[in-house]
Amino acid sequence: MRLAELSKRSGVSTATIKYYLREGLLPPGRRVSATQAEYDEEHLRRLRLVRALVQVGRVPVATAREVLAAVGDESVDQLSRLGTAVSVLPHGPAATGEDGAVDTARRTAEEVQRRLGWRFVPENPAHGMLVSALAALIRLGYPCDVEQLLPYGRAAATIATHEIALIGEFEAPTTQLEAAVALTVLYEPVLLSLRRLAQAEEAGHRFGGGPAPG
Amino acid sequence: MRLAELSKRSGVSTATIKYYLREGLLPPGRRVSATQAEYDEEHLRRLRLVRALVQVGRVPVATAREVLAAVGDESVDQLSRLGTAVSVLPHGPAATGEDGAVDTARRTAEEVQRRLGWRFVPENPAHGMLVSALAALIRLGYPCDVEQLLPYGRAAATIATHEIALIGEFEAPTTQLEAAVALTVLYEPVLLSLRRLAQAEEAGHRFGGGPAPG
Repeated sequence: MRLAELSKRSGVSTATIKYYLREGLLPPGRRVSATQAEYDEEHLRRLRLVRALVQVGRVPVATAREVLAAVGDESVDQLSRLGTAVSVLPHGPAATGEDGAVDTARRTAEEVQRRLGWRFVPENPAHGMLVSALAALIRLGYPCDVEQLLPYGRAAATIATHEIALIGEFEAPTTQLEAAVALTVLYEPVLLSLRRLAQAEEAGHRFGGGPAPG
Repeated sequence: MRLAELSKRSGVSTATIKYYLREGLLPPGRRVSATQAEYDEEHLRRLRLVRALVQVGRVPVATAREVLAAVGDESVDQLSRLGTAVSVLPHGPAATGEDGAVDTARRTAEEVQRRLGWRFVPENPAHGMLVSALAALIRLGYPCDVEQLLPYGRAAATIATHEIALIGEFEAPTTQLEAAVALTVLYEPVLLSLRRLAQAEEAGHRFGGGPAPG
């Protein structure tokens, strides 16, 4: 298909597609004349992922390029590709300062993962993100001991089991990886909004004799 | 206590405390001389909440002021105060465009809440946040029908039950509300990082014969 059709089918403007091509987020089309190129279904699929990352997930363009490189790196096995792709996604600010709060947060984060039966991988940036979030709770004096965290961890495990099974339904390995990365980003606001809706419902039962008004 | 001690006990610089006082995020201290004021435990508690909102949750100052006004509004019952306080927290961009994706997203979001047995409150901004997230998934062609969403909703309900019980343990109603608002914001990165850690663990079982490397 030509650029105009790629734009129409993806809902992404031709100017934005050209920008993604220049930035290397989209592989070049097959040149058919001096001024025209031909694009295929793979371009369309890749474009969806780029939009998910950049427009919805607000991932910086340079980071998106790294994620896509990891997804497409056929020199390593699928699990390594997935691990690398997800690990270069933004993880929020790392824990700052080497005060007692960070030490306690590190110990708590490790213990939670051990109690949940997960292998502890200190290099996983999600571990750094957890340490940073726990350090903030500790500094502000809010509860975040291991017992408080386990229900969140168990809920996360249930969700992850569902997600990884879903991804396994996609056919080609590269398509699976693209879906894994896109769904990781796109389901974050889904989960957070459902949590707030559930809180309103539960607060209604506890404090109001009925569900919360909003 | 004097300003210097409030700063020391809270870990917030005196310059930042003065800024919060000017912006009305912190009630003025009790004036003891022309140049000095006295602060109490309530100031310290309030300061923790402001830091949680502004520094950790990146809530704009004007929004934080609205949240605090809702928490402190003793003219209405506790559930209304909580509902208002949480509903003015940022909820991300609302769904844009009145295309088919938004219509489908609205129907899906309503159906999920109905299936979970939650009262459907269209004015709750968390509902708008969910619609927006689902519309993005639909436009990009990723799966997000009701069956896909129910596991997230059930996990959210488990978490919310735990959270509302935790908040009930705080003594005074205002302290409960402050904790509810702070924990809503501060536990978001905790939940998202645990989901990524759980994904790595689960992907390791499914694709790698062992846990993921990161």
